[in-house]
Amino acid sequence: MRTGIGYDSHRMVDGRKLILGGVEIQYQKGLLGHSDADVLIHAVIDAMFGAASMGDIGDHYPDSDERYKDISSMILLKDAYRLIKENGYKVVNIDSVILCESPRLRDYIPAMRHNIAGILEIPDNAVSIKAKTNEGMGDIGRGDMVAAMATILLASDNKKFPLY
Amino acid sequence: MRTGIGYDSHRMVDGRKLILGGVEIQYQKGLLGHSDADVLIHAVIDAMFGAASMGDIGDHYPDSDERYKDISSMILLKDAYRLIKENGYKVVNIDSVILCESPRLRDYIPAMRHNIAGILEIPDNAVSIKAKTNEGMGDIGRGDMVAAMATILLASDNKKFPLY
Amino acid sequence: MRTGIGYDSHRMVDGRKLILGGVEIQYQKGLLGHSDADVLIHAVIDAMFGAASMGDIGDHYPDSDERYKDISSMILLKDAYRLIKENGYKVVNIDSVILCESPRLRDYIPAMRHNIAGILEIPDNAVSIKAKTNEGMGDIGRGDMVAAMATILLASDNKKFPLY
Repeated sequence: MRTGIGYDSHRMVDGRKLILGGVEIQYQKGLLGHSDADVLIHAVIDAMFGAASMGDIGDHYPDSDERYKDISSMILLKDAYRLIKENGYKVVNIDSVILCESPRLRDYIPAMRHNIAGILEIPDNAVSIKAKTNEGMGDIGRGDMVAAMATILLASDNKKFPLY
Repeated sequence: MRTGIGYDSHRMVDGRKLILGGVEIQYQKGLLGHSDADVLIHAVIDAMFGAASMGDIGDHYPDSDERYKDISSMILLKDAYRLIKENGYKVVNIDSVILCESPRLRDYIPAMRHNIAGILEIPDNAVSIKAKTNEGMGDIGRGDMVAAMATILLASDNKKFPLY
Repeated sequence: MRTGIGYDSHRMVDGRKLILGGVEIQYQKGLLGHSDADVLIHAVIDAMFGAASMGDIGDHYPDSDERYKDISSMILLKDAYRLIKENGYKVVNIDSVILCESPRLRDYIPAMRHNIAGILEIPDNAVSIKAKTNEGMGDIGRGDMVAAMATILLASDNKKFPLY
């Protein structure tokens, strides 16, 4: 078993789609980034790479690379999962928090969980997503930023890590 | 085994009691919220629900519900533990961080740990609470906000999650 | 197995060295603190003490103690590891995130991982470090603060915790 933690943040701006957990959310603003800026998926990918000690999202999918311009982060998640699987890992469970002042995300969460679980070959109930405001404080509270943090537990099929 | 992460924040304001980990702390301000705004207990509840994939504190105890007005968060913790226990989980250990510029919390931590451990039916040494300032920076550093984050490990008695 | 989480932040100021993961990084500013202010190592130590329920870095190495003035945090990490080892713990793996707007840290990460792994008697691939900016937002985004968070998994040799 190995633990991982991921954190990501993006600016909320006009003229962008708001995509979280692979779900397009109806809102007048969206997140700024080189890819689709899906802050939740980025945190999950980083937790996954971190638990497997395989670098981070920027190592594998650099934002200087035109191939990743406006790409769906679900494609990156699928590729990241392929990489950790090749190294003998599978996902036990994921828990996450989205910090977003507005809009309310609750109704979209089942679809987000289903998207992530499908790609990672785990049941929906092994993926948890919680949404919080920051009580009106800071950049998140002003609606200028959305952040996400994720924790993951991986299990290993092989004996690459001899201690445990 | 399953991992969970919880995060919560509340505004520090005049005219409220400061309650953390179920302990009333002598201070000229307190945390604003619908319940007693015990930011540490809320982070622990969210980590627990998250690890069990059972939603979040807002799903179970909505702040629009008058039943939870000014309620002690320890009552919510007890109920949340009952719910995860019904689903076959028990708590392995909890670690947490309170981000609070002032007052100093160190002397209150043993009582907080004992409160939480008692409700979760684990020894005090399976509950860790660490207190930090934010070095004078941001809303926390100005004393306008207190935040908490918690991580938890749950073990499962049953075979509801067939993969592991 | 036990999980832990650590968080630390320090101000970025003129006239200090920038030391992260025991590596001195060439930069015009550095982190303010009583010790060398190695924010990553502090987060790792706190995660380690937290998972073992042994208090926090401030309990063991108070910043009011002249012995720790400008001390290398690697010495503190070594001592913290000695303490958890005495209690029957060993480290399974560590994952971490450094939030730092500037400078770019990627090239320094292999050396940081090697430093930490060497002290904790684990292979380099059991230590993961990810570096992120905060997209120009808040104190971190302005370059006035660097933060780090870490998660750890400990295994226990002994039977001090009878439940699991």
